[in-house]
Amino acid sequence: MDSKDENALAELKGLVSDFISERDWDRYHRPKDVAMALSIEAGELMELYLWDRSPGREDLEDELGDILFFLLDMSIREDVDLKEALKRKLEKNRVKYPADLVRGSDLKYTKYREGEDDGGQG
Amino acid sequence: MDSKDENALAELKGLVSDFISERDWDRYHRPKDVAMALSIEAGELMELYLWDRSPGREDLEDELGDILFFLLDMSIREDVDLKEALKRKLEKNRVKYPADLVRGSDLKYTKYREGEDDGGQG
Amino acid sequence: MDSKDENALAELKGLVSDFISERDWDRYHRPKDVAMALSIEAGELMELYLWDRSPGREDLEDELGDILFFLLDMSIREDVDLKEALKRKLEKNRVKYPADLVRGSDLKYTKYREGEDDGGQG
Amino acid sequence: MDSKDENALAELKGLVSDFISERDWDRYHRPKDVAMALSIEAGELMELYLWDRSPGREDLEDELGDILFFLLDMSIREDVDLKEALKRKLEKNRVKYPADLVRGSDLKYTKYREGEDDGGQG
Repeated sequence: MDSKDENALAELKGLVSDFISERDWDRYHRPKDVAMALSIEAGELMELYLWDRSPGREDLEDELGDILFFLLDMSIREDVDLKEALKRKLEKNRVKYPADLVRGSDLKYTKYREGEDDGGQG
Repeated sequence: MDSKDENALAELKGLVSDFISERDWDRYHRPKDVAMALSIEAGELMELYLWDRSPGREDLEDELGDILFFLLDMSIREDVDLKEALKRKLEKNRVKYPADLVRGSDLKYTKYREGEDDGGQG
Repeated sequence: MDSKDENALAELKGLVSDFISERDWDRYHRPKDVAMALSIEAGELMELYLWDRSPGREDLEDELGDILFFLLDMSIREDVDLKEALKRKLEKNRVKYPADLVRGSDLKYTKYREGEDDGGQG
Repeated sequence: MDSKDENALAELKGLVSDFISERDWDRYHRPKDVAMALSIEAGELMELYLWDRSPGREDLEDELGDILFFLLDMSIREDVDLKEALKRKLEKNRVKYPADLVRGSDLKYTKYREGEDDGGQG
């Protein structure tokens, strides 16, 4: 990782961290509760697409902002480097789902993955 | 946003975008399905904290990597600038939960927010 | 509620209650954790439909069994009569979404509900 | 299953089925969307316990009513006998987590289940 990227993510984490500490909320933001909050927000995002809805622009941005907020919050509480976590997971998934095999296969995506754990499938 | 940050996020989006297109998976990644995937992964993260568990390091990084993957995927499908979305949401929440009021209040956090929608609470 | 129904639900609650206490798991099943478990299981159900998948029969029954398990568990921990809760919620939703209005409306379902909280929409 | 129980569950399914068809909403209630709705409602239940909150009685009953609504809706759409699904899942979990072994073990619950898939753990 070059310093440029590190700075970009550090800046966003700093905004989240300040927002929480300025309100004296750190004591509530235990990792278990932050994981719950992230899941709740993901449900709210999903609700924008429920039945035959199309999300409005502002609602969509609000929910994605919320999810990024709690994802950065998790990375602060558990001291995880999100960028490195993403890169490592992509590496695992490249092995699990080799592009040539997946692409060249006649099997449907749904079949190909049958019986697979698909955490982070991509 | 300065160009430095834009580059950092653009790089991560590029990794996600390439991973999906190399497998010919774009057709599956409709926004509604990506929102579902994000919610499913958030559930898997939460499971690491269920009952009295403590997450292992690798499991934690895997799940956070998955969530970042689908969050970037959402931002690609819906063309949302995540950094701007976060900043705008923080601005809204600064108005909704003024630091002075929240901090100085004798009210419990749980009471303060009673009756509030807390999307993105912070 | 007549005694017949009460017996049916009481029987299922008894099965759940016994399963947990036989394993000495009551101490883990705090309402907050049971609510998390319910949400995690709902995510697993949803995963059966992700992308273009069609759930297998056994997977589907397993997930629905899990969700009913934790829903009954919640009703035990919080002493809620599920049948009465459903009936009251239906009554609220009949007022909120009058059949004549919803049915006769030219508005799309998605429009009709705009700006509505749709807990339990039906 | 004796006829008594079947009647009780059949009655509840009938209430849900009528509510939906009276509003001409069957076309929206595809299984994939109902699974999403169930997950969204589970998130709303969970939100009642987020941070240090204690749910109010009416909110709790509303959310549990919503979840039962969509669970019954799922069982209608996919023609699943919920009671049988629960009983079969309990049978599987009795084999997976034998009461004697779980109870007699010095291992913490969290350790005991390490590496386990815990769908429906109980």
